[in-house]
Amino acid sequence: MPPTDRIRDHAGQGAPTVAAQRTRRRLRADQARQLADLLRHQLLTGGFPAGTLPHESTLATEYRASRNTVRQALDLLRAEGLVERLPGVGTVIVAQKYPHGLDRLMGLAETLHEHGRVTNEVRTMGPVPAPAPVAERLRVPPGSDVLYIERLRRLNGLPLSLDLTYVPLDIGTALLGCDLENTDVFRLLESLTGQRLGHADITLEAVNADAHSAAVLQAPRGAAVLMLERLTHLADGRPVDLEFIRFRGDRITMSGLLHRSL
Amino acid sequence: MPPTDRIRDHAGQGAPTVAAQRTRRRLRADQARQLADLLRHQLLTGGFPAGTLPHESTLATEYRASRNTVRQALDLLRAEGLVERLPGVGTVIVAQKYPHGLDRLMGLAETLHEHGRVTNEVRTMGPVPAPAPVAERLRVPPGSDVLYIERLRRLNGLPLSLDLTYVPLDIGTALLGCDLENTDVFRLLESLTGQRLGHADITLEAVNADAHSAAVLQAPRGAAVLMLERLTHLADGRPVDLEFIRFRGDRITMSGLLHRSL
Repeated sequence: MPPTDRIRDHAGQGAPTVAAQRTRRRLRADQARQLADLLRHQLLTGGFPAGTLPHESTLATEYRASRNTVRQALDLLRAEGLVERLPGVGTVIVAQKYPHGLDRLMGLAETLHEHGRVTNEVRTMGPVPAPAPVAERLRVPPGSDVLYIERLRRLNGLPLSLDLTYVPLDIGTALLGCDLENTDVFRLLESLTGQRLGHADITLEAVNADAHSAAVLQAPRGAAVLMLERLTHLADGRPVDLEFIRFRGDRITMSGLLHRSL
Repeated sequence: MPPTDRIRDHAGQGAPTVAAQRTRRRLRADQARQLADLLRHQLLTGGFPAGTLPHESTLATEYRASRNTVRQALDLLRAEGLVERLPGVGTVIVAQKYPHGLDRLMGLAETLHEHGRVTNEVRTMGPVPAPAPVAERLRVPPGSDVLYIERLRRLNGLPLSLDLTYVPLDIGTALLGCDLENTDVFRLLESLTGQRLGHADITLEAVNADAHSAAVLQAPRGAAVLMLERLTHLADGRPVDLEFIRFRGDRITMSGLLHRSL
């Protein structure tokens, strides 16, 4: 018996036939989403080490769902670019998402070091007059030069994020001579200033990629992007690094631990 | 002089005419994104209290950008649903994003209490046999019943998130009689168990909304969704609440503070 037969459905009570049909369709879509969420978690956390999902009929039995619901759930995962159906093989996991830590302030290469090598293509780098909101947050005079860096960041050669970075020029000038292709800006800032980083204010959003960002990230137009805005301070409290980072939504997850009391 | 004229452009050095044109177009798109990111930050943090953006020519002067770049930046913000152009009025801010705290474990009504009233439409509620990954994470025997709740959550009447929740049945049964329409599950769990919540493991992703989720959230198909998976434990460590939450990307930001050292 599929689980929803036992569920109290608020829309379905005493509904006439057309409404009942609509309710059934809605319930199947709801169940498919429910199943897709569970499978997504498993495939992102290594729950299918063989790299393939169990057969549809196995999933149907395991999750007490109809074959139609299972098919619809797999369609959802396929639309997200997580799995592909290969004739004769089954449902294959094609995308891996990499976990970016949310508990500690870390650069990309640091947080992903277990997963491979991060390389950075420096698309643009040079001084620009700081626009007012940048100047204010970096605490430099408005219009004074800051270093602007634009990087496409890759993990094992695959585009992962597009990073726009502003750094005060006294530190930025020294960055110009550094190996930005292979080193996190965080690490460079610490070695240039002889100070550890302290804290960062972060904001996360989900946005649809504009055409140009999508092209740079080699993602479909409109692809979901995890957008991270981060203002990083040195241990002494000085703000030194303002970044706008667009992560490909299909390649990054952010994981952390929250506590009820601070 | 626009800022990029002074920028060392890695692709443009010694390029022939067609490539140079392509480079110029690319640079303008890059600059537009750069400007859009700065404006997005300002409009999301109340930087334009009048509810309208400055005139294009003012923005062009302030940000030392060409009118074309400004227009392209405003187009990006419009595509994200953040602004609209109104003839005779200018560029109006139409979407507000609400900040969800990332530093403390909080329910939606708690974290957004300054911004208005959260109401919950319970779409589905009832016992379901726990699928293996749910049973494992909630530490109940596989196949034993858990309470499943599906809620559409609104802030001041606007759809904000679609939440799928699993709760062990001993606690879940008591939830059935509670005012879920107007109360966070977090608050109910604490009052039912007589215990504070302790911690939660969270994972954030950006995904494109499937057709059905989009319809429920009244968002365009494919809209970027901020997906939060959260396993919440009581203060004594027992896992009591597994949630899969789809936030409308255009209505929620997640903000927090990260430290370099733990």
